[in-house]
Amino acid sequence: MGITHMTTIHSTTLRRSAVHAAPPDELAQRYQQVRRVTEQLGAPLSPEDCQVQSMADCSPTKWHMGHTSWFFEQFVLAAYAPGAERFHPAFAYLFNSYYNAAGTRIARPTRGLMTRPPLTLVLAYRRHVDHAIAQLLANANESLRATICPIIEIGLNHEQQHQELILTDIKHLLSQNPLDQPYVDHPQPARSGDVAVPPLTFGEYEGGVVWVGHDGEGFSYDNERSRHRILLQPYRLADRAVTNEEYLAFMEEDGYLRPELWLDAGWATVCEQGWLAPLYWRQLDGAWHQYTLGGVRPVVGVEPVTHVSYFEADAYARWAGGRLPTEFEWEHAAANVPITGNLLDSGHYHPAPVKAAGRSNGDPGPQGLYGDTWEWTQSHYSPYPGFIAPPGALGEYNGKFMCNQFVLRGGSCATPAAHLRATYRNFWPATTRFQFSGIRLAEDAP
Amino acid sequence: MGITHMTTIHSTTLRRSAVHAAPPDELAQRYQQVRRVTEQLGAPLSPEDCQVQSMADCSPTKWHMGHTSWFFEQFVLAAYAPGAERFHPAFAYLFNSYYNAAGTRIARPTRGLMTRPPLTLVLAYRRHVDHAIAQLLANANESLRATICPIIEIGLNHEQQHQELILTDIKHLLSQNPLDQPYVDHPQPARSGDVAVPPLTFGEYEGGVVWVGHDGEGFSYDNERSRHRILLQPYRLADRAVTNEEYLAFMEEDGYLRPELWLDAGWATVCEQGWLAPLYWRQLDGAWHQYTLGGVRPVVGVEPVTHVSYFEADAYARWAGGRLPTEFEWEHAAANVPITGNLLDSGHYHPAPVKAAGRSNGDPGPQGLYGDTWEWTQSHYSPYPGFIAPPGALGEYNGKFMCNQFVLRGGSCATPAAHLRATYRNFWPATTRFQFSGIRLAEDAP
Amino acid sequence: MGITHMTTIHSTTLRRSAVHAAPPDELAQRYQQVRRVTEQLGAPLSPEDCQVQSMADCSPTKWHMGHTSWFFEQFVLAAYAPGAERFHPAFAYLFNSYYNAAGTRIARPTRGLMTRPPLTLVLAYRRHVDHAIAQLLANANESLRATICPIIEIGLNHEQQHQELILTDIKHLLSQNPLDQPYVDHPQPARSGDVAVPPLTFGEYEGGVVWVGHDGEGFSYDNERSRHRILLQPYRLADRAVTNEEYLAFMEEDGYLRPELWLDAGWATVCEQGWLAPLYWRQLDGAWHQYTLGGVRPVVGVEPVTHVSYFEADAYARWAGGRLPTEFEWEHAAANVPITGNLLDSGHYHPAPVKAAGRSNGDPGPQGLYGDTWEWTQSHYSPYPGFIAPPGALGEYNGKFMCNQFVLRGGSCATPAAHLRATYRNFWPATTRFQFSGIRLAEDAP
Amino acid sequence: MGITHMTTIHSTTLRRSAVHAAPPDELAQRYQQVRRVTEQLGAPLSPEDCQVQSMADCSPTKWHMGHTSWFFEQFVLAAYAPGAERFHPAFAYLFNSYYNAAGTRIARPTRGLMTRPPLTLVLAYRRHVDHAIAQLLANANESLRATICPIIEIGLNHEQQHQELILTDIKHLLSQNPLDQPYVDHPQPARSGDVAVPPLTFGEYEGGVVWVGHDGEGFSYDNERSRHRILLQPYRLADRAVTNEEYLAFMEEDGYLRPELWLDAGWATVCEQGWLAPLYWRQLDGAWHQYTLGGVRPVVGVEPVTHVSYFEADAYARWAGGRLPTEFEWEHAAANVPITGNLLDSGHYHPAPVKAAGRSNGDPGPQGLYGDTWEWTQSHYSPYPGFIAPPGALGEYNGKFMCNQFVLRGGSCATPAAHLRATYRNFWPATTRFQFSGIRLAEDAP
Repeated sequence: MGITHMTTIHSTTLRRSAVHAAPPDELAQRYQQVRRVTEQLGAPLSPEDCQVQSMADCSPTKWHMGHTSWFFEQFVLAAYAPGAERFHPAFAYLFNSYYNAAGTRIARPTRGLMTRPPLTLVLAYRRHVDHAIAQLLANANESLRATICPIIEIGLNHEQQHQELILTDIKHLLSQNPLDQPYVDHPQPARSGDVAVPPLTFGEYEGGVVWVGHDGEGFSYDNERSRHRILLQPYRLADRAVTNEEYLAFMEEDGYLRPELWLDAGWATVCEQGWLAPLYWRQLDGAWHQYTLGGVRPVVGVEPVTHVSYFEADAYARWAGGRLPTEFEWEHAAANVPITGNLLDSGHYHPAPVKAAGRSNGDPGPQGLYGDTWEWTQSHYSPYPGFIAPPGALGEYNGKFMCNQFVLRGGSCATPAAHLRATYRNFWPATTRFQFSGIRLAEDAP
Repeated sequence: MGITHMTTIHSTTLRRSAVHAAPPDELAQRYQQVRRVTEQLGAPLSPEDCQVQSMADCSPTKWHMGHTSWFFEQFVLAAYAPGAERFHPAFAYLFNSYYNAAGTRIARPTRGLMTRPPLTLVLAYRRHVDHAIAQLLANANESLRATICPIIEIGLNHEQQHQELILTDIKHLLSQNPLDQPYVDHPQPARSGDVAVPPLTFGEYEGGVVWVGHDGEGFSYDNERSRHRILLQPYRLADRAVTNEEYLAFMEEDGYLRPELWLDAGWATVCEQGWLAPLYWRQLDGAWHQYTLGGVRPVVGVEPVTHVSYFEADAYARWAGGRLPTEFEWEHAAANVPITGNLLDSGHYHPAPVKAAGRSNGDPGPQGLYGDTWEWTQSHYSPYPGFIAPPGALGEYNGKFMCNQFVLRGGSCATPAAHLRATYRNFWPATTRFQFSGIRLAEDAP
Repeated sequence: MGITHMTTIHSTTLRRSAVHAAPPDELAQRYQQVRRVTEQLGAPLSPEDCQVQSMADCSPTKWHMGHTSWFFEQFVLAAYAPGAERFHPAFAYLFNSYYNAAGTRIARPTRGLMTRPPLTLVLAYRRHVDHAIAQLLANANESLRATICPIIEIGLNHEQQHQELILTDIKHLLSQNPLDQPYVDHPQPARSGDVAVPPLTFGEYEGGVVWVGHDGEGFSYDNERSRHRILLQPYRLADRAVTNEEYLAFMEEDGYLRPELWLDAGWATVCEQGWLAPLYWRQLDGAWHQYTLGGVRPVVGVEPVTHVSYFEADAYARWAGGRLPTEFEWEHAAANVPITGNLLDSGHYHPAPVKAAGRSNGDPGPQGLYGDTWEWTQSHYSPYPGFIAPPGALGEYNGKFMCNQFVLRGGSCATPAAHLRATYRNFWPATTRFQFSGIRLAEDAP
Repeated sequence: MGITHMTTIHSTTLRRSAVHAAPPDELAQRYQQVRRVTEQLGAPLSPEDCQVQSMADCSPTKWHMGHTSWFFEQFVLAAYAPGAERFHPAFAYLFNSYYNAAGTRIARPTRGLMTRPPLTLVLAYRRHVDHAIAQLLANANESLRATICPIIEIGLNHEQQHQELILTDIKHLLSQNPLDQPYVDHPQPARSGDVAVPPLTFGEYEGGVVWVGHDGEGFSYDNERSRHRILLQPYRLADRAVTNEEYLAFMEEDGYLRPELWLDAGWATVCEQGWLAPLYWRQLDGAWHQYTLGGVRPVVGVEPVTHVSYFEADAYARWAGGRLPTEFEWEHAAANVPITGNLLDSGHYHPAPVKAAGRSNGDPGPQGLYGDTWEWTQSHYSPYPGFIAPPGALGEYNGKFMCNQFVLRGGSCATPAAHLRATYRNFWPATTRFQFSGIRLAEDAP
């Protein structure tokens, strides 16, 4: 469930990716940078905060920190640094998220029960692994570098996925504490009344036979491959995301009470879960507030709505007279848009207010495709033509989630910028709300 | 869940479909024919058999009989035969499967609790409705005919869907009775050893930009529309379905015990449900048998495997080194294949042995595309381009199931022949096994 | 769960009970009488009514009819009538409620799925068994009579238990049908306003060392044995049951909304199940009605409240400033009270209005101890001193329910009069509401 | 559920208990002692260990520490030390286990999610409360002392209950960690083969009319009151507890596989939970080991079996041809036995080997009644005669658990010695295994 599962290790893949790997020195430097980000994300947290798993879909910060280190120990050091000793014999078991055979890893929902090793020991584990990787890279000959650099590349992408999850998982945990404490302090943003939401406009796309998928230049996951042609009908894509103000209108028109707006399974979920608003929303003194990583604050109308499930995104679109885009409509529109926006690197950890649509003043495309919130598409997560699950660990970890999940595109305020690209496919079940997920509308072109 | 939900009533649809309606006399005759089939399907059953609902996904035969009659009473007689009295004031409530508003219909899983009205009264209800429809058709002027004929047309297609469900639902019920009694008696088919399974061959298709979907000539459901172009990669499609003998090889190679062959959600289901074979299979005296509508008999190797879920179909395909076709690959291959085969009309109610593939001796296409078993495709059930849920009852009943279901194509031994076409989209969740669902393999063309 | 499980077959028991058995001719006659009652109870029901199981705690009427016949076939005919053939080889499996070993009986919640054999065949089974028993009794010599009469005695008590269950189970089924049809037609009783509820008075009992339990003269179940002495504190017992009018006062004072009135587990049940009134109560046009075996009618104030769980009885008592009696307080008070009242034999199948308490006009004891409703006691169902589960089938079927159930005393309007005695212990879990269970208050004597 | 709920606060109780309170100086000293024990129990634990709740029945150590302090703040300081400020306004909410009204406390199963306040702050809270209580006691006049001392007395008993729970809850948590680390290091005890289990002998008791319950001299909970007479049949009580060696014989004779040995609900639990041995037992290299608070070690035959449910205790007794004692048989036998044994104060935290029965060498009674393990009785937890739930908080917290629980007697290796008495009634549901619960057999006297 979710992007954490996409990581793959397979010799063919590695060899094929090898040519794209960065030079070793640059890689060593980037390794340091990426690993430091993880630790910086943990810095505001106590040992208690890092310990607890607030639901089965989430993992403790401590586990994220151990697991990402285990990845390098397991797939690089154990395989290619023969002298290196394992930091602790039980860590392979404790921090393995992989599905090898029955009994070889702890059940996901019990990760939070592992109070030992303590956080201090996991941080020591990180330093141990970092030191060994640095040494290995420094001393590797050409041939060894050609082998290990692509694996390290994968490990860094894997770690970036977990950086996003550290933020979404800790948000879920802290949101349940009645003390309402923030993860980090942030200045209050503009309030709803201060800024007007710019009108929603649509860009028009001709469609036709277009290319989608990743071409293999640079890093990609295999669910993005291979690059292939599809036939797109003409369509229109909104120039910005749906805002809280717009979503509130849906709520005020009884959006959560009208079964005709919902998918059948969505309505069942609304009834079972008692959904009446996006996740983390609550009413205080008659006004909607939301728990953010900066604490509880009033819902701001000009911000993109976030923490909505696929079901809510779909119901909103139906209510609004539009629909969600397909993942290929999104990718086609994003093909030439630079990857900038309110991403993890901004340190804001919350969607930023939408701006007046760029298209009206000559901007070549829609705003906010990258960052702020992942955008639900109407595309079930399915394999691309030519995708056949290969044998081995890789085969176990790619196609196996291609069932009953929907594709999201574009990254969020918790996604590292260096992790994204136009072809990147994130995926979650239709019920998922704890990710920074939002809505961009589409329409058929007339 | 399933084809029973696809029925739609919407004035626009009706008007649009009107031109395709058969002449009234022909329609009156066909009405009689279709309705009689339903009653013939119920004939071998006792009042007790017709009463019970063996699981939430199934409905009692008595309910199917009442519900299909209610359709004509509700949408034809109540609207266009002003003099006609309702047979019973509570039947609109008891036999409505529609989702109008909270509280207006009985919960689906409790249909089997309604021991009253008894079967005899429901059969009287059928006769009452049939009589009134016949009179209405006989006396209608041109204008009224133009209005009601398309609705009756829908009603007949709706009834045909329920004919298939009567068979699958009663099979599920009777299979649980330790008396192992048949629904109808049938001669034993050829036993496994008697006939050799012909070798599996593949037909090759060039792909390219092709048309899919229904063009609006004749009856169709709106999930088949509109007709549009897509781009198909070259592919190969098996000339026949996977047989029991082949599926047994999968089982003997521990297919149900190897997680690497399964989708993640599929493996979870296998473990939870303890699946070790297709539904209705059991071991007797060391040999696999299966409950059929003709009673319990040995599994016959040359018959297509049936009552497998999407998860099993997908795992089998992975084990066999192939994959499932997309729904468009299937539709493209079927475009010019005549709709013949082992369908409900044959009265066999069980898949027939596969024959030597036609292609080798000049036959223009694959065998068994229609009938025997529905064939799982790898396509999630999603809307076609241009599909927007319209307002009203129609809007409630089309797109609302387009989530977490997979498309099946081709009909089964329980599907009326007149109900099928190349563009017909059946859909069920990936866990479903009580339908006559089977497997046809596909591959990428080299 | 419940009285259906108390039946026991054990050679020691049988021999010990033999001396109390009625003479064979009288027994043959009584056999006929008891068996006819069962069939009369089924007479108003259709094959569909007799087929369905509305929840796991209930059984179909057809099953009750088959199971009670199987009892005689299994324990009398199969053992002592060597010539007698089994009516059908599979019936031992289909109608066995006993727990011999894994896999030898159908799971209780699936009894309603067995649409075959049909009701007609089960009725033929009854006639077959009755004929064989009559012949066996007629031809048995002294020694055989001494053996089989006590078993037949048990079988008749067993059948009487199932007569009560036929009524409670069919009530549960029919109550869920929106047609609200009665099981039998009955004249409307006096309405609430017509008759005043007589004031609640209490009888006083000195307590002390008293005898409780069955002395072995005549039939008894072993959970009533052995007779032993206990020490009772002085207590007071209400002269009549709690009425609907009194219970409505509890409801109007927010009885179902105040956690302080409830046992912890009771409050959890109230919240989970959304209980707001006794089972079968509903509001129509602003007034409380209840489904009875005579159809839906207004709640009558002077009738004893019924279909309340232990939790509701306990909460009511707390609200009323009293408590429930212990089973020994009840038994001591009932010791010399004749077994008369509104029992199954009256054919009313619903509690009758309470009368002015007898005590005021010289009557030696409380009214309504027997019949109308079973009365919850505060006593957990536990073994009497000296009770040790014996080996064999008997051991399996006595002590095994002595956990987390409460004792009820006195029988109901669905209990055959001949089945009751002062020492009779019925028992159900604290959540049970589908039995005719009601409330009698007690207090400590000052 | 369990002893943590028995605490009561009620003005009448307090006033009634006041005469038994210790002198203030002595109380101040004892306050210090009891509170220090709690902190000593937490000393071996990390912040992570103190944070996690391993199942709903358990609570985090941090919560136990906060909750016991809140008790004194809420019921003593807030009421009688007007100047004292609350340490933190939210702590009343976070650390309240009481059931006042909906929404005023956090749901029990989510206690472990409260990562804030951190452990350091909770320890500061303890010091703050301790300081304020010490000052209040030092400065109180006679009248105030008469008021607060009984409340403090209750608070200390309450804290002792939580000391036991700290040990049982942390054991449950650490037992799930694959690192198998001990809570504290302990020397290995004698191994099974080294010491012979002394033969099991029984003491005989005449029974008759005897007194049970607490007489009100010194502290007691109200479920122990009032003292009253009952009539006991003659009985025999085992001179020592059942040992692991004896329990292993039960296991080796397929005790967990034979339904006839189990209560019906017990067998259902065995099947659902897959029980095959007591909690914390596991097989390593073909030998049974158990997780103890000293780590994993071989099961020692001469130690009392512990961590068995009521169901297991009952099944064992049936297998052994005996039964469990009633709570009154136990209390009567224990009436004159001094309260010594392997209790929390010994710091061993694990049952000690049984010794040769005392009775043979002139000892007046059975050994090991106090300490080692709580002993399941066959008595459902029910009110004593005269018990009526009083109004107010007290009423909410006494009778409300008297449903579907069984009484245990005698304390365990985790119970403070000063907390116990012969009349003390512990209670848990029949499924509970995480307490130190064991088995002592009884029999009817001939």
